[in-house]
Amino acid sequence: MGEVSRGQLARELGVSPASVTTQTSELIEQGYLTEVPLVPGAEPLRGRPPVALRVAAGAHAVAGVKFSMRKHVAVALDFAGNQIAEACEPARDRAPPGDQIEVLARLIGSVCAEAGIGPGDLAQVGIGVPGFVDHASGRVHWSPVFGARDVDLAQAASARLGLPVIVDNDANLAALAELWFGSGRTLSDFAVVTLEHGLGMGLVLNHRVFRGALGLGVELGHTKVELDGALCRCGQRGCLEAYVADYALAREAHVALDLAGGSVGGADLVERLYAEAKAGNAVAQSIFRRAGRYLALGLANVINVFDPELLILSGERMRYDYLHAQETIAEVGGSVLPARATPPRIEVHAWGDLLGAHGAGALALGAVTDRRIGGPFEGAAA
Amino acid sequence: MGEVSRGQLARELGVSPASVTTQTSELIEQGYLTEVPLVPGAEPLRGRPPVALRVAAGAHAVAGVKFSMRKHVAVALDFAGNQIAEACEPARDRAPPGDQIEVLARLIGSVCAEAGIGPGDLAQVGIGVPGFVDHASGRVHWSPVFGARDVDLAQAASARLGLPVIVDNDANLAALAELWFGSGRTLSDFAVVTLEHGLGMGLVLNHRVFRGALGLGVELGHTKVELDGALCRCGQRGCLEAYVADYALAREAHVALDLAGGSVGGADLVERLYAEAKAGNAVAQSIFRRAGRYLALGLANVINVFDPELLILSGERMRYDYLHAQETIAEVGGSVLPARATPPRIEVHAWGDLLGAHGAGALALGAVTDRRIGGPFEGAAA
Repeated sequence: MGEVSRGQLARELGVSPASVTTQTSELIEQGYLTEVPLVPGAEPLRGRPPVALRVAAGAHAVAGVKFSMRKHVAVALDFAGNQIAEACEPARDRAPPGDQIEVLARLIGSVCAEAGIGPGDLAQVGIGVPGFVDHASGRVHWSPVFGARDVDLAQAASARLGLPVIVDNDANLAALAELWFGSGRTLSDFAVVTLEHGLGMGLVLNHRVFRGALGLGVELGHTKVELDGALCRCGQRGCLEAYVADYALAREAHVALDLAGGSVGGADLVERLYAEAKAGNAVAQSIFRRAGRYLALGLANVINVFDPELLILSGERMRYDYLHAQETIAEVGGSVLPARATPPRIEVHAWGDLLGAHGAGALALGAVTDRRIGGPFEGAAA
Repeated sequence: MGEVSRGQLARELGVSPASVTTQTSELIEQGYLTEVPLVPGAEPLRGRPPVALRVAAGAHAVAGVKFSMRKHVAVALDFAGNQIAEACEPARDRAPPGDQIEVLARLIGSVCAEAGIGPGDLAQVGIGVPGFVDHASGRVHWSPVFGARDVDLAQAASARLGLPVIVDNDANLAALAELWFGSGRTLSDFAVVTLEHGLGMGLVLNHRVFRGALGLGVELGHTKVELDGALCRCGQRGCLEAYVADYALAREAHVALDLAGGSVGGADLVERLYAEAKAGNAVAQSIFRRAGRYLALGLANVINVFDPELLILSGERMRYDYLHAQETIAEVGGSVLPARATPPRIEVHAWGDLLGAHGAGALALGAVTDRRIGGPFEGAAA
């Protein structure tokens, strides 16, 4: 999102300088790019005055919203991807879709007010939700944040806001945020595993978010790690998520903390379990340790099948250091191909919901670019 | 590998008819394409005499060789991918690499004799081996067919044969064969799971074999399906392969058949187990049934993370119908995302070693095309 000279652009894209000049002059005319004085170190092209190109930050504004089980976070971004406003609201469990649409409208109102623009000034809204999301159609087959199945979220949100809306799975958006703003900017292939209320994965292959042939994407959380194993909230047995997610920890926490359950919510219960473990409760520690070992198993499986350059662990629950302790990371190394010359690179980014909101914003920026400038652009609907 | 008109080519590639005319006239000059009378139904382009283009079958010949634990199979292919000769030799377990290079030389000699050409007439040799293969460097980190680790197969074979040699994992070559000659010709994303002595997977994404960032590819057989589970021949525990491969069945067959073991080889033991199961031995049936359930779990995991258009089950062991019985396929359906609108398409191709040899031949053809015509071509070394 910085400056780049035309010469550098030509080299990086592998096209002729003349082609860059033609293409960029159109984008400058349309107001998407501006010329700025060349930064030191960049070289002039063809004896012109030394200038670089920069995305015109004011060309458009978009909003990105991430729904989660704890809170809903919205950001407004300018066309260069800079955050110009932020808002959040605590989550209400499994609210009816209509209520969540009203939450969305309030969040959009808040970020617009903070950014000093009207909602009608937004070029696009991007939304990220956990669960099974059909990005192409904008439908949410199932999500823990909705009290209903098969919600036509893009259509309903668009009708309420009077704005174009694009929707994706939150783990895909975490990957998109890393691709646009984070560690993934210089990589062609990487994976982001998100651990929040559930376990998700976003995968970037050849600089693009991989969504699979049917657009359902990568459901790491529901890969099976034990035949006839623990019951998952998806209704199936032995899913990885059923061993590492909040609700998996909560299930054992009831035993460990000798609680009757029911009155204590899942998230609070896990917080108490974590406090107990930190205070030296060996049973509480064993629960996190076991979840960490299953997480390691799942991460090793990701590395064995996708062989990414980098694996990023992301999400709110990465605060629980037991889950990514040295032993866990070492266990990943012991479960991947012995033939690998180098152990896989693993980074922990406990960035939480703001990252997801930025990913939703990047999705919106991609859709705007795609629509206004044409051509496939990462993050745009299929 | 059939005929195609220039107009159809332009439409399928999304380029201009003029560009097709320019490019193909070069290829005709170089002898890689020939003009043939237009097939009925195809349309003329720009009023020229109605002709179609066909790959010039005689432009080059290549050989493809597949090494496996049971036998080694070689084919010679013409430049259009037609088989012009075939040869095979029984395998000897874990032979020293030098002996296997001699086997290779004999197989190449046999197919050349049958094709009526000299080995020096081959433009390229492709080799497929099971195990951990670094396609880019041509090194075999580990393979059950070699009695040594870290074999520089491409270099050693090339030195012995005096021909360029390219090497890949046998499951990648099964996928390449399906892409060039089989069910994958019209698909952009599909997976081939091979079950022979071990369990392998080849994955085609966007019409190309996916090899991962580090070139080690997709190691489905060593994804973990149970924490601290059954011992795998890779030395790790809980690998899918350790529940479904020959040696996994053989381990339980010793118990079921009340055999002391040692004197009966792995493959024969599994054949006897299969005969027992077919004859009504309930214990023998339960061994296959359990392996089938684990295979179903592994296939569901493939579908959950890659979301392919088609999943092909391939390899010698697919003869064991218990492994792909209706219940197994149904079990896959019950372990994938409930959100999928349609159950995944699964096909069983018990094609065996000849398919792998054709894949090795396709790899060789890709390398020739890449070297002689330029530009990245599927199957060529990175």
